[in-house]
Amino acid sequence: MMRTLEPNECERLLKSRYHGHLACTADGKPYLVPVSYVWTPKGIVGYTHEGKKIDMMRANPHVCLQVEDITDRAWRSVVVYGTYNELSGTEKTTAIDALGQFVANAKISPPFVREDMIAAVHPPAPAKHPVIYRIEIDEVTGRAFGELSDLS
Amino acid sequence: MMRTLEPNECERLLKSRYHGHLACTADGKPYLVPVSYVWTPKGIVGYTHEGKKIDMMRANPHVCLQVEDITDRAWRSVVVYGTYNELSGTEKTTAIDALGQFVANAKISPPFVREDMIAAVHPPAPAKHPVIYRIEIDEVTGRAFGELSDLS
Repeated sequence: MMRTLEPNECERLLKSRYHGHLACTADGKPYLVPVSYVWTPKGIVGYTHEGKKIDMMRANPHVCLQVEDITDRAWRSVVVYGTYNELSGTEKTTAIDALGQFVANAKISPPFVREDMIAAVHPPAPAKHPVIYRIEIDEVTGRAFGELSDLS
Repeated sequence: MMRTLEPNECERLLKSRYHGHLACTADGKPYLVPVSYVWTPKGIVGYTHEGKKIDMMRANPHVCLQVEDITDRAWRSVVVYGTYNELSGTEKTTAIDALGQFVANAKISPPFVREDMIAAVHPPAPAKHPVIYRIEIDEVTGRAFGELSDLS
């Protein structure tokens, strides 16, 4: 049976995951990419290098992030409607710290996702500094189906 | 090393998968959901019930579908830019046949995805008839990282 997730269930799912899909839009056309992220009390922190996604989010900060947990017997999915906020200065440093703490404490798999996150915290070269952003959460909805287990 | 996927590699990935993420947009805001689909020579066939996604795609048919294959050592991801086309009549019957053939021949997991696809082909009640759509492919791009294995 399908059911709606409570706000605290949505937050637990977002906190327990670090992989999602992010959509943005320009000129009436959507664009969508997989992203790694870290949940923080102020919003969803992500990182990326310059490119199409960043150009679009700079021009139009409305974004949608979807995160899911699928097992053999159940699924749950959370959709975040939010606003893209590119970080700089102290906010950027704090966000990088949050990423660094997450990488240090979480069991991140597959290995290239972990390496990707480490590269965001400790860029291999100055030219490789990623853009760090935070999605300010405007609204969250979630749905689930089947027998859900506890989130690990 | 990151590399661009050739068109035939993009098509092979789309053919070998049946789970992706679909983004649409309205009023400058994106929306994003996980979807099950079947690749056909004419486009990507999907199904859904009435709701926010359908309302948005009916109002603005520009969509973006992203499909990925992630293993411990590599990932590949394909992005389809396409146009939503709600099917009726013979086209709908042909699309439902393609879904039915896929369900009969493919090893679909987890079980609820298989059940969901069967329900699209053989709705449990007339009121439950899903909307069947085809994404006409306008452009496909793909990228990969790491040592890719053959697609199964």
